[in-house]
Amino acid sequence: MRSYSPVDFTHVSLTGPFWAERLETVLTRTVPSQYRKLEESGILESLELKDPPPPLRIPRIGGPDGHTHQVFWDSDIGKWIEAAGYALRHRRDPDLEAKVDAIVDQLEAAQMADGYLNLWYQGHEIEKRWTNLRDRHELYNAGHLLEGAIAYYQATGKRKLLDVLERYLDHIRTTFGTGPGQKRGYPGHQEIELALVKLYRLTGERKQLDLAAYFIDQRGAEPHYFDEEAVARGDDPKAYHFYANGNYQYAQAHKPVREQDKVVGHAVRAMYMYSAMADLAAELDDDSLRHACEMLWKDVTTTRMYVTGGFGPSASNEGFTTDYDLPNDTAYCETCASIAFVFWAQRMLNLDLDGHYAELMELALYNGTLSGLSRDGELYFYENKLESDGSHRRWPWHPCPCCTMNVSRLVASVGGYFYSVGPDAIAINLYGGNSADLELDGRRIRIVEESLYPLSGKVRVSVHPDGHGPFTLRLRIPDWATDAMANLNGNPVDVPGQTEKGYLTITRDWIDGDVIDLDLPMPPRRIYANPKVKMDRHRTALARGPLVYCAEQVDNETPIADLLLPRTAELVEQMRPDLFGGVVTLTTKAETIARDDWGPDLYRTAPPTPAPTTLTAIPYYLWANREPGAMQVWIRES
Amino acid sequence: MRSYSPVDFTHVSLTGPFWAERLETVLTRTVPSQYRKLEESGILESLELKDPPPPLRIPRIGGPDGHTHQVFWDSDIGKWIEAAGYALRHRRDPDLEAKVDAIVDQLEAAQMADGYLNLWYQGHEIEKRWTNLRDRHELYNAGHLLEGAIAYYQATGKRKLLDVLERYLDHIRTTFGTGPGQKRGYPGHQEIELALVKLYRLTGERKQLDLAAYFIDQRGAEPHYFDEEAVARGDDPKAYHFYANGNYQYAQAHKPVREQDKVVGHAVRAMYMYSAMADLAAELDDDSLRHACEMLWKDVTTTRMYVTGGFGPSASNEGFTTDYDLPNDTAYCETCASIAFVFWAQRMLNLDLDGHYAELMELALYNGTLSGLSRDGELYFYENKLESDGSHRRWPWHPCPCCTMNVSRLVASVGGYFYSVGPDAIAINLYGGNSADLELDGRRIRIVEESLYPLSGKVRVSVHPDGHGPFTLRLRIPDWATDAMANLNGNPVDVPGQTEKGYLTITRDWIDGDVIDLDLPMPPRRIYANPKVKMDRHRTALARGPLVYCAEQVDNETPIADLLLPRTAELVEQMRPDLFGGVVTLTTKAETIARDDWGPDLYRTAPPTPAPTTLTAIPYYLWANREPGAMQVWIRES
Repeated sequence: MRSYSPVDFTHVSLTGPFWAERLETVLTRTVPSQYRKLEESGILESLELKDPPPPLRIPRIGGPDGHTHQVFWDSDIGKWIEAAGYALRHRRDPDLEAKVDAIVDQLEAAQMADGYLNLWYQGHEIEKRWTNLRDRHELYNAGHLLEGAIAYYQATGKRKLLDVLERYLDHIRTTFGTGPGQKRGYPGHQEIELALVKLYRLTGERKQLDLAAYFIDQRGAEPHYFDEEAVARGDDPKAYHFYANGNYQYAQAHKPVREQDKVVGHAVRAMYMYSAMADLAAELDDDSLRHACEMLWKDVTTTRMYVTGGFGPSASNEGFTTDYDLPNDTAYCETCASIAFVFWAQRMLNLDLDGHYAELMELALYNGTLSGLSRDGELYFYENKLESDGSHRRWPWHPCPCCTMNVSRLVASVGGYFYSVGPDAIAINLYGGNSADLELDGRRIRIVEESLYPLSGKVRVSVHPDGHGPFTLRLRIPDWATDAMANLNGNPVDVPGQTEKGYLTITRDWIDGDVIDLDLPMPPRRIYANPKVKMDRHRTALARGPLVYCAEQVDNETPIADLLLPRTAELVEQMRPDLFGGVVTLTTKAETIARDDWGPDLYRTAPPTPAPTTLTAIPYYLWANREPGAMQVWIRES
Repeated sequence: MRSYSPVDFTHVSLTGPFWAERLETVLTRTVPSQYRKLEESGILESLELKDPPPPLRIPRIGGPDGHTHQVFWDSDIGKWIEAAGYALRHRRDPDLEAKVDAIVDQLEAAQMADGYLNLWYQGHEIEKRWTNLRDRHELYNAGHLLEGAIAYYQATGKRKLLDVLERYLDHIRTTFGTGPGQKRGYPGHQEIELALVKLYRLTGERKQLDLAAYFIDQRGAEPHYFDEEAVARGDDPKAYHFYANGNYQYAQAHKPVREQDKVVGHAVRAMYMYSAMADLAAELDDDSLRHACEMLWKDVTTTRMYVTGGFGPSASNEGFTTDYDLPNDTAYCETCASIAFVFWAQRMLNLDLDGHYAELMELALYNGTLSGLSRDGELYFYENKLESDGSHRRWPWHPCPCCTMNVSRLVASVGGYFYSVGPDAIAINLYGGNSADLELDGRRIRIVEESLYPLSGKVRVSVHPDGHGPFTLRLRIPDWATDAMANLNGNPVDVPGQTEKGYLTITRDWIDGDVIDLDLPMPPRRIYANPKVKMDRHRTALARGPLVYCAEQVDNETPIADLLLPRTAELVEQMRPDLFGGVVTLTTKAETIARDDWGPDLYRTAPPTPAPTTLTAIPYYLWANREPGAMQVWIRES
């Protein structure tokens, strides 16, 4: 039994400037341009099942890298269909629909008689299908195609792709399981599990939930399936060629998931798996899965999370290393990992409406996720570093474009994260102007929010219920809003006294037009890291509201790496309508030791004398949208 | 014309505790144990010219590495003979002499009819001799054998090895040069040049000086010899397999030496070459060489020198990288590089008696060099890092044992660096109790110094000239001795007024028994690095007199990496007779952020509160002589 449910994003109309702009950019620029990239880069050609494949034509920085058809391209096609489906749910578009339909026709044509559908294997080595779940992404691809099929069906009512995928799932169900003659396999890259839960929620078919549960339950069982399939195909199980870390941890398959309490390995695989575990915990009322999720959540958020809500410090395994190892300039922080964390956080929040989950969901959304997409909606970060000497640049595309369409599908559906609906209660998790048509126990309730959030912490919520009868409204009070105030129809509300687990909780017989005015003060603040994070010692990160800030070279005359911020220097907010359509910058008196008149000596007995300068910081997610230059989140204090 | 000359080390008897102990350790433990290592490791077996060679038997940390006969082993044999020769000049030892004689007999037996002598080529591929000067160390080996031959001849009067080497040099002279039929080659690893100058100074034969000058003058000429010899042997000149940096800079052969003004490449090669250039500048009165030396000196000491007098930050090329790139934990700082810098500094000092050269010679000697030898005289550092997490340990031996015998030959002859003799003047460059029998313009002058230097800066110098007549005594006033005082026979001397280029200069008709009391105050001091050295920003190094200090874990209860030293904390000297036979430690109130009661949070808005602790520092050269642990030279300031 699920405590709270997410809200379909189509029921939330985003009217506030922040999300309206991001959403519009994604709908009008990102989704269409991504189709062009799929075409230009040769990914759509993989639908033609040519062998040998055409060379990869990626307009990437540094020139083409000689890649051809990649085993994960089905997933990119699926993810784009999903993003396009979300776009179509915002507004129908015959041209976009025709593009999806053409792809769907090709996928249908490609599907084998027994239901199998995988462009790589069908194009190149069909005799090897299902021989390498560990490395070859077949189930991962199926999961993303399934999510695309669901989204497109929900947008258009067209079932063709969903039918294709359901046939494929029947094939998968026959192939994998604990019955006689079945392979006891599970995905090397988790994803299909959460997609199956989505399908179950759409169709109500128990078999889809069972298949998801099978994959989760089987994972990490002994004897180890990845070893068995390696031996079966004549490989040395120890030769983990796709595994930088050369071990089961890479794919979180080192032990059964219920025994896992340490976040390890590839960050995106981990977060997709935890999301599915939380889904199954809710659907199956499985306390052991829920407990594992809580342990893993506590672990990652107290030892392995960047202040931006980024995850996975290391490029070598695209994932986790050791506790408190959070290097800034070499941070990997794949956009997909933050997005997958947002998925997981939402599921944890709906299992247990605790503001802590919403707080970190919001952190990852506004910072580690949004930084992955440029202001113009057509350039990307795959890696979201927290410090750069100026060499870290956005890409027009990527040989592995997973992050590009992950960010578009998230932004296109972001309204779904604003609210949760539970028994007798509506929870507002995220703020920003919107109007939402919600349903609570069969009753229609309209919530209208007027706010410039996150530019300002002032939020006006008006409630418009159909009919009468009491229900509870929960309004999240962020941790940083230490002196939050609220009025109900002009009368003060005792915020501290009425806040439960991070939510201001008001139960009453709401009347059409009731208004709550919420004031969430967001003075600029300094964040410090646990001293165990050695790379952040003697440094501070600046933040305002949910936004983490960074110093970018273009706003600063002193080289970023030379900046020193005195502990007591006041951070001054400045509304800059000229910048990115309106943004609050933080400015402060700072120092630099680089301008000391040191002379040619290499060493001397007098310390350098810092010279005064000014530091200007912008929201982290906006960096790398102007002239290239250095950037730093953690500023050294003096 | 040389301004000043070094003094033969046998004329300086070291009586002060510091050098007497190091010298005695080297004579009684290091030199004998090194013979055993040469035997045990198979190096002496290379004299038997076996093919295939026996496997290398090195008792190294981490086990044998499968090396066999190395192309540079002749140099190790030569360097040990040199160290043994110096030991024998301190006191004859029939057993040691017999060991050298046996090696000399083998070398004589091995020498080919045409004079060629190289154990690798003769043992394995004689047909390839002189085909790869760039990588194969033939001339480098010859240089070290020559230095050994000179030292052994000076110690014993036995000429056999010197004869062998002179025959070899005649062969080399025939082979290389600008005449018809000669190869225009020069060493890939410089060394023979300074050895040839030594031989010239011993025998007065101009042809030896000319050969040194040829090698120096030819270096970097176009067309490039290393390319020509590569093509001649059928190799691709671009495939610089021994050159991590893949370019001529590695061996300082990128342009003629007189055009070089930037210190680049392999640090030991560089310093040996600069030493030879300074030698030739003196012997040939060559201002262009002297000017190049001065430019290179200025470059390295203002942009690429560690505070310990270490050189070469990078393991990949055993050498230099970019200006101000002086990482501490990955510092390479090969012991040989500091030793070679001491050689160069002495030559620069004798070209131009400026205390600056003596200052840095002393710095490298007491710190970057001495750190390479353990207290017991039988363990070594090849790399002298300035920071370690505890994993950097001394070696009982090394697959490339160049540093081991370099440090023994330097310590065995260190008395030679104390004085310089010039026209009408004796200069005291280094302090420490000693009695020196010097000759100035044919006149014998005895100098007796009583001092515990560098434990204390109090120095009593008594002068005992034969006969009468004025001469000048120059006593170096170190830069750090800011309030130096002096008395002559009890009467104050105006130190600032009488100090020229870093030397207190007193000219008088010295009378037997004249006494100068010098007080060189050595309060503990903090050293700061130019802010361009990014890794040392916000850090300070501690020093007292010529000794740089470090914090070693064994003396500190707080983890070294967590120490914070307040800018104004007083550094307290403590004489510790119990430690290393008497050493001054520095102790100070410090802080640590690691003991803050932070709790499990990863981030928070309150900064960590430093807790008080104590920091104890010992002289850097003494670290890693007790239980293994972390070490840091540059301490973070708070």
